[in-house]
Amino acid sequence: MKQTEQQEFYMDAEQFLKNVAVDNVILGYHDKELKVLLQKPFIVNKWTITGGHIRKTESIEEAASRIALERTGLKDLFLEQFRSFGSPNRAKDETFNAKSITEKTGFEIPPDLWIFDYFVTVGFYTLTEFSKVAPTKGAYDDDCQWWPINELPPMLFNHENMIQEALKALSVNIAHHPIGYELLPEKFTLPQIHALYESILGKSLDDRNFSRKLLVNGILIKLKETKKIGAHRSPFLYTFDKEKYDLGLQNGDVLVF
Amino acid sequence: MKQTEQQEFYMDAEQFLKNVAVDNVILGYHDKELKVLLQKPFIVNKWTITGGHIRKTESIEEAASRIALERTGLKDLFLEQFRSFGSPNRAKDETFNAKSITEKTGFEIPPDLWIFDYFVTVGFYTLTEFSKVAPTKGAYDDDCQWWPINELPPMLFNHENMIQEALKALSVNIAHHPIGYELLPEKFTLPQIHALYESILGKSLDDRNFSRKLLVNGILIKLKETKKIGAHRSPFLYTFDKEKYDLGLQNGDVLVF
Repeated sequence: MKQTEQQEFYMDAEQFLKNVAVDNVILGYHDKELKVLLQKPFIVNKWTITGGHIRKTESIEEAASRIALERTGLKDLFLEQFRSFGSPNRAKDETFNAKSITEKTGFEIPPDLWIFDYFVTVGFYTLTEFSKVAPTKGAYDDDCQWWPINELPPMLFNHENMIQEALKALSVNIAHHPIGYELLPEKFTLPQIHALYESILGKSLDDRNFSRKLLVNGILIKLKETKKIGAHRSPFLYTFDKEKYDLGLQNGDVLVF
Repeated sequence: MKQTEQQEFYMDAEQFLKNVAVDNVILGYHDKELKVLLQKPFIVNKWTITGGHIRKTESIEEAASRIALERTGLKDLFLEQFRSFGSPNRAKDETFNAKSITEKTGFEIPPDLWIFDYFVTVGFYTLTEFSKVAPTKGAYDDDCQWWPINELPPMLFNHENMIQEALKALSVNIAHHPIGYELLPEKFTLPQIHALYESILGKSLDDRNFSRKLLVNGILIKLKETKKIGAHRSPFLYTFDKEKYDLGLQNGDVLVF
């Protein structure tokens, strides 16, 4: 263990807010698969959602965006706050204490180090095309990668619960906000958009009802083009009527499936 | 200024989390009026929503409930988290500094007192029948009372914006949750429930459409009784079918007006 590394690890605290941090549930969709970006801090053997501390000079949104940029390389991620989590017992784990961390890292960790304090965390989520993202681990991580939403590795603290809460919030918000725009190509087939909504909502949706709702609301436009996907299959292509979509959302129209 | 009071004012900090607090937007409805419970801290001449600091021994929800109980006397308030707010400039106000507060209170306030730190605040809201509540000021308040939502007094920091954000969250959540149950008598007329929803949503709603949606969904039951409200007026009474309401909400049915 290098002395300078250890000092940095301690001193970092001074530039950050105490007792409050941010966590980002970064969800990625690609070809019917929903994944979440996780990091593995080098001090423990478990995974966490991507997150970090808030600098005294930045807002909670700026902190969330800075950390998301560091992990994904994407500047324009739309992060939506969904809930804050805070209780004295939230960050308890049998591997998260001075003794275990000293053994694992070789750092001499005092039992009252600031990282063991009670932290309230402000949860954000975002949804992106995961093939766009090059996962990049942070200064204090061993690893950072995508995990399928239904096959999560062992997770630290309440982070698995935070992912579930983010998915719940997303499935409510999908009725009120144009989530999903950037996850489809400009022209897509009905099965493509159907699979996207099924993945996000985590349930199967009746084919006919689904497309009827989108068409009745004027949100989807049926194009004259078709997509050749086999010798005998060439379904019609569709596109969003963005103006109608935005107008509907402003008026409080809600899309429920 | 008593020395003990001043000491208490300083030392309080030790039992609370740093850099993070809670604020409750307590909304009250009664007879077509929507109000919000505000407090006036004795250190400034402006009003705030009711809020306070988080003890190191309690969760954010417990802190919000403790403070709501102190101000309202109500134990069973259902507080819903809607958003957290945090930026280095959130708590700026020309009257919120050591010099102004020393002048107003006689306390010798150091410029770096902890109350001037950057606080992230976790926002909760609740909706109650305001005639049930006896507003009670806190230890550091000059006053605590109901204000009509459209006639707010001068407010500190970003608190007026926080009220607007709470109302926005409420108008989305009213589609997904049984908000409003406890705000009406067990049996009520259509104009009564119509007025409640109009107050909460802040817009006028078409009479026929409104009752049709509630009746079609089986949420409202028309009773055989009528209410005598004048020589020639005796509208029918209605009641909620609570089972159907809860079932519908669980199934993801949404009530949009």
